[in-house]
This record gives sequence, structure tokens and C-alpha cells, in this order.
Amino acid sequence: MSGATPAWPPQSTPRLFVDAPLGAGAAVRLDGAQAHYLVAVMRTKPGDPVKLFDGASGEWLAVAESVGRRDLTLAVREQLRAVETVPDLWLCAAPLKKGRIDWLAEKACELGVARLVPVVTRRTVVDRLNLDRLRAHMVEAAEQCGRTAVPALADLVKLPALLRDWPAGRALFFADETGGVPAAAAMRAHAGPAAILIGPEGGFDNDERDAIRALPDAIGIGLGPRILRADTAAAAAVSLWMATAGDWR
Amino acid sequence: MSGATPAWPPQSTPRLFVDAPLGAGAAVRLDGAQAHYLVAVMRTKPGDPVKLFDGASGEWLAVAESVGRRDLTLAVREQLRAVETVPDLWLCAAPLKKGRIDWLAEKACELGVARLVPVVTRRTVVDRLNLDRLRAHMVEAAEQCGRTAVPALADLVKLPALLRDWPAGRALFFADETGGVPAAAAMRAHAGPAAILIGPEGGFDNDERDAIRALPDAIGIGLGPRILRADTAAAAAVSLWMATAGDWR
Repeated sequence: MSGATPAWPPQSTPRLFVDAPLGAGAAVRLDGAQAHYLVAVMRTKPGDPVKLFDGASGEWLAVAESVGRRDLTLAVREQLRAVETVPDLWLCAAPLKKGRIDWLAEKACELGVARLVPVVTRRTVVDRLNLDRLRAHMVEAAEQCGRTAVPALADLVKLPALLRDWPAGRALFFADETGGVPAAAAMRAHAGPAAILIGPEGGFDNDERDAIRALPDAIGIGLGPRILRADTAAAAAVSLWMATAGDWR
Repeated sequence: MSGATPAWPPQSTPRLFVDAPLGAGAAVRLDGAQAHYLVAVMRTKPGDPVKLFDGASGEWLAVAESVGRRDLTLAVREQLRAVETVPDLWLCAAPLKKGRIDWLAEKACELGVARLVPVVTRRTVVDRLNLDRLRAHMVEAAEQCGRTAVPALADLVKLPALLRDWPAGRALFFADETGGVPAAAAMRAHAGPAAILIGPEGGFDNDERDAIRALPDAIGIGLGPRILRADTAAAAAVSLWMATAGDWR
């Protein structure tokens, strides 16, 4: 630890996503869980700093003004950071059991995915999905990992529709348990917009795999000799893309 | 689905780790949770196949003989696969909150880590660790992901002792939040035995970082511009190593 004067706002400053446009001079009123967190957990007092981001205009420094028991008002002072630019990577993944899909949404946000697309496949056991809960997990992850934007969350789509409407020129790296080229080399060779497609725990069936392969932008990738759970494969593939074609280089 | 005769044993054959040496002709008696799983959950009947592995002699085909309500005996027939060789990668990680360290152990096994080393650092909040529970999570992951060996699990060690006894020649890639070279390039440049060191949620303190850097085999790596949780950083770094220096190439 150096003896220098600590920076203001301190590192411990709470950081929250607000679903309203931010700007210098704006007043933001918080209630519910966010107010409880600031007032009851963080013991925020008038004059205390809070970092806010809205997913569109970057990160802002705000200061608590009136602090009630169940709500508080913050005055937005100045922009701390511009909105981030994350690399153009989508993660298309079949819904998983509650705990695992929540974890996948958290990791997708931390690792820097721009868009999460839940995809229904034939072997997808989970056919209903709480998008609000998924988004809440991504918001919490964005608050924690310093992202100034929350990944976009697409509606649940069936695999045939996803493939039918696939945007030409966006590489589609799909985890191919039947083989496929080593992931890192394949990703390094394809710069530009990309997506990773991960099947359900049971994998794609043969017809689905054929349909994916028929897409000109599809590239089957291998993730090593061991069987990976779907959530593990997703985190591994996104990490490899970020390191070979994304902003970890 | 092809119309060919399904292979025997079928893909759905249960797969279990047994903590006793296996060999052709051996009889294995199971009780407790494993017997409950086979008898009550999988409805195993005499003559049904079960895959067994002991972490040392590969994977074996066994057949249920006597099946009781709370225990059953299996006859080991033949070896299906030799014991695997996983690349020589250790994951040295500070203990995390219960759910996250369990998840990390599962992922370490799936991704192919040879040895998991829990490390206590100054900012490690969790100083007690249930090694049996960690091992149980790795065993379950090994059963699921087809590994024929469970990663070795080291005793909890303090960071200074880990560094003091570090085996010369084993590259130590540590996640350096203060910077560091891009992980994939650094790992590609260092073949041979390696380890990944991940700090606790609070990161390493400055003295610890200096002590790690003082190790000749230490290489500080960066994992991109976003802040990653410790469990995310561990999964990402192991994936990158497997793809650039391990057996995913």
C-alpha cells in the first residue's frame, strides 16, 4: 500500500445499473432492491459516491442526496468512462437447468459477450426460460465486472429459425462432439463478427448437425478429447474466441 | 438415427468411479450412494452393464451380478480404455465461497487439469476448506466427462510455501490484474509442465504479486479488459492453456 492520498471515488464505491438514461445534472431515484442495497447494506449517506451505468452512455459518478429508509435520490455529477465497445460475439446456447443457465449468463457477461441468444434444440429439456431472471444475472455480473453495457438478450428461438435467418458473414462456431477443427486455430483464422453455438447436454442430433453444417458460415470446432458440460463448453469457447479474435490479444 | 444394431454396452451405460484397484475377473461390491444410484435410479438388473474406473487402470466393463436393495455386486469383465494421459497442468487457486469453489473443482476436472492445489493468500476469505467435498465434485465430474482419472487434490497450502517449494522448470502463469502479457500468446510460447495461479476475489496484494514475480518460472498473464471473477478467470485460463499448450490442439 502506498502512502498517497486515496483516489476519490474510492475503489469500494458501489456500482449499479439503472434502466434510465444518465447525464450530467440528472437526478436518479432508486427504490426496491437497489435502494435496500445502498441504504441497508452499503450504509450510503448523503454525499457518498455511487457509480451508475445505463448500458448506453457509459459510467457516471453520482452522489447521494436525500436518503430515506426505502428510497434515495442520487445527483449525477460527471461521466467517468465512455460506454465500452465489446467485440461482436454472440453466444447462442440451449437453455440448461436453472443453476447452470444462470451461471452461463453470468459468465457470458463477464467474458464480454455482446449478445446472448437462447436456442431451443430437439434435445433441449428446458423449453421454458425466465428471460427476466437471465437478464438480472447479466446485470449483476455487469455491475461486478465493470462492464458499462449489459449484453443484449434475444428471445428464445428454435434452431431452424436461427439458421434460416442467419446473418451472412457472421462466423458460426458450433461445438461439434463428432469432431471439428481445433477451436483456437479456427477462431484465429476468422476475424470479424462471430457467434458460438452450444447445444444442450444431450448435444445436437444428427439432422441438426447436418443443418448447421449446411450453413456457409458454420465452422465445427473441437474442444479437446474430454466431454464438456454445455456450460463449460460455452465458457471455454468464448474464452478462446476472446483470446484469439476478440479483445484479449 | 441409423438402423444399425446399437453397440453394447449402450451409450447410456452408467459410469462410476470406484476407489479400489480394478482388473479382469475382479468382483466389486457397491453400497451407499453408488448402490442407490444404480439400483433405485438406474434400475440396474443382474446382467446389466456398468462402466467402472479407478483412476489408475483405465475404464472397465463390469456386469451386475447379485443386486440387492441397498447393495450390489459387479463382475469386472474387460478393459474398455487404458488410463488417460492428461497434460501436465496444475490449477492453483484460492478457495472461494462454497458454490464457486465446487464449480471450480468440477470445471478443473472437465477441462483436464492434472492437479488442483488450493492456495491461501492474504485476501482469501475462506480459510477452511472441505477437501472431501471438493474431491467428490471432481469424481462426479470425472464420471460425467469420461475421464478415467480424477485430478490429484493437494492439501491447502499458503502462498509463500507454494512459491518457496516451487518445482524449477514448471511455468507459473498467474492472473495479473495489474497487467501482464496476453495469456494465449504467453502460454503458446511456453511448452512443458505448467500451472495456473488464480488469486481470491480480492486479488493478490502488492507484496504477494512481487513475491510471485520474483519466481523465475512466473509469467504474469492478462485475461482481457474486463474484471473476471476468480472462478471465471480459472476456467478461462485453463481453457486457453489446453488450446495453446495442452491437448486441444
